[in-house]
Amino acid sequence: MAIFVLVHGAWHDGGGWEATVRHLEDLGHRAFAPTMAGHGKGADRGVNHAQCTKSIVDFIAGKSLTNIILVGHSFGGTVISKVAEAIPERVRRLVFQNGFVLKDGHSLIDEVPPATAAFFAQMAKESPDNTVMLPFPIWRENFINDGDLEQAERSYAPLSPQPFQPLSDKLDLKKFYSLETPRSYINCTEDIALPPGEWGWHPRMSNRLGLYRLVQMPGSHQVMFSNPKGLAEKIVEAGRD
Amino acid sequence: MAIFVLVHGAWHDGGGWEATVRHLEDLGHRAFAPTMAGHGKGADRGVNHAQCTKSIVDFIAGKSLTNIILVGHSFGGTVISKVAEAIPERVRRLVFQNGFVLKDGHSLIDEVPPATAAFFAQMAKESPDNTVMLPFPIWRENFINDGDLEQAERSYAPLSPQPFQPLSDKLDLKKFYSLETPRSYINCTEDIALPPGEWGWHPRMSNRLGLYRLVQMPGSHQVMFSNPKGLAEKIVEAGRD
Amino acid sequence: MAIFVLVHGAWHDGGGWEATVRHLEDLGHRAFAPTMAGHGKGADRGVNHAQCTKSIVDFIAGKSLTNIILVGHSFGGTVISKVAEAIPERVRRLVFQNGFVLKDGHSLIDEVPPATAAFFAQMAKESPDNTVMLPFPIWRENFINDGDLEQAERSYAPLSPQPFQPLSDKLDLKKFYSLETPRSYINCTEDIALPPGEWGWHPRMSNRLGLYRLVQMPGSHQVMFSNPKGLAEKIVEAGRD
Repeated sequence: MAIFVLVHGAWHDGGGWEATVRHLEDLGHRAFAPTMAGHGKGADRGVNHAQCTKSIVDFIAGKSLTNIILVGHSFGGTVISKVAEAIPERVRRLVFQNGFVLKDGHSLIDEVPPATAAFFAQMAKESPDNTVMLPFPIWRENFINDGDLEQAERSYAPLSPQPFQPLSDKLDLKKFYSLETPRSYINCTEDIALPPGEWGWHPRMSNRLGLYRLVQMPGSHQVMFSNPKGLAEKIVEAGRD
Repeated sequence: MAIFVLVHGAWHDGGGWEATVRHLEDLGHRAFAPTMAGHGKGADRGVNHAQCTKSIVDFIAGKSLTNIILVGHSFGGTVISKVAEAIPERVRRLVFQNGFVLKDGHSLIDEVPPATAAFFAQMAKESPDNTVMLPFPIWRENFINDGDLEQAERSYAPLSPQPFQPLSDKLDLKKFYSLETPRSYINCTEDIALPPGEWGWHPRMSNRLGLYRLVQMPGSHQVMFSNPKGLAEKIVEAGRD
Repeated sequence: MAIFVLVHGAWHDGGGWEATVRHLEDLGHRAFAPTMAGHGKGADRGVNHAQCTKSIVDFIAGKSLTNIILVGHSFGGTVISKVAEAIPERVRRLVFQNGFVLKDGHSLIDEVPPATAAFFAQMAKESPDNTVMLPFPIWRENFINDGDLEQAERSYAPLSPQPFQPLSDKLDLKKFYSLETPRSYINCTEDIALPPGEWGWHPRMSNRLGLYRLVQMPGSHQVMFSNPKGLAEKIVEAGRD
């Protein structure tokens, strides 16, 4: 039995992992899906990256979890990197699921195509509370391209505006890059939330992990909605020793 | 129920889609597979790209088809791009199946490796009617690498010489690149009709589509012969809203 | 019925193909898995690349095998290239399974990332007999990433130190590059024994083969342990006419 802590990406909250958690439990494991500070419907959006990280650290410490497999999806990859710096003794393995593995000193926004970065920066500036929202057409075509329209709509409904600050905070990752925590990268082969190639997830992000384990599966960026059972199986494969 | 119009590639005619059409119909859809002007056994080879396009436009208008999912395979990708310019009001979505998405002002021949371009240009020059044929060994190894020898031979037999003019016509695609027609790209992961990498189909061609949906499946360039049922399913997935 | 000769990679001996041989036989074929000179527990490590090649040539000639499908895994790719030069008349097709396809004049070590090359050169220098061993953590994460820990341990146990000389010998491959022997490349899509991208197996190695057939399957570098049945099927697909 392994213990998984699943860290969601931008716009999401922990509820997005519901089906994945259930399938991990069906496979005999324990799984937790906390919601980061500043995320989820109704949350105060005034958070920075450090506060996002702290909320996950507090969750893990509060539940006295040790020996955890810490899984970060998308933006959540930047958070698990900092959580691992904070409480390395509690983390057995890191799993990035199409997660951002930032260069030391970079923000997430430094690692997306310039046009995307400019689009989000502008949207944040025009928002009342420095947040960004993902337009539905992008969600439907680029994030859940393997789902049908109904799935796309159903999974879009719980999303909420993403605080921009955690996306633009530049992170000191020197300690992360000195850690020897085992790490895996799950790459969904149809994930085009980042455009494949020069700006893609894999191998751009994965190769930064040094010695790492690659696990791939068919699916989009939002495979936790389109195929949560398959994802749970791959999380187990990525997370085992 | 959706309406599919399937546009074949070089050397082919509409008959190459026969099994795919049947599987699309089995899935509850309507599907048409016209043969372009200048293509098919016995056709007059003296056509240019505009005539190829016009023949497809005429087919669609002649049958009063609207709301169509317009699918273009390989060279057919260049044709559906121009058909969409001509009759955008009839096209619900474009689907490129390992199809050429040309840069504005380019010909197909501008987008293949220089050695391939030179090989075809020379062959056209030496032919009596400015056509090119695909040598069987290339067909067998690079086009239908997932089939067996008998399948390769059976599917090669109906091919006929390809007019070179439509491959070398440089296309004004400014209108195409201004269209907001939804679009998808089906990439068969073993397609080496273009060499993977710098000159490959995906993401080189797909990334030019702006906001697009990626659908992948195992298979070669000629998956309509080696796996028409699987292809039909992916065409439906690529074509839905 | 086809005749397969399977040539192992570094650290391995012919025994690593045991399950694959059995599955090929179940599929109605004959399969041989010789151990190269200088390889296998207890062998004299003082061999160069030419001696590795000669031992395979001698095996094939000694058994009077003709019309063979010659399969090379990893380092074995460099050996089958030279075997094909020596006895082209006996080889019906070459199959590289995530195998090295060296540039003319290169050694294997010239074709791995500089840090890896330096790591192995240093290890060889520090060894008593100019050999290198693969550390278990690299085996587990990068070579058999699709297996579980027990499989990783079980498959690691039979490995033995690899003579460094055959990895650092620069090979004259002019004849190889003039051969017209049909050739296929099997790429396992999760193989990160070479890091995907600039230094990856595919398409870097495969594109050097000129006209070749691509066959892909899910799996790691050591799919002969994690999925020998699937590998046998793909070897048949890669090896047929």
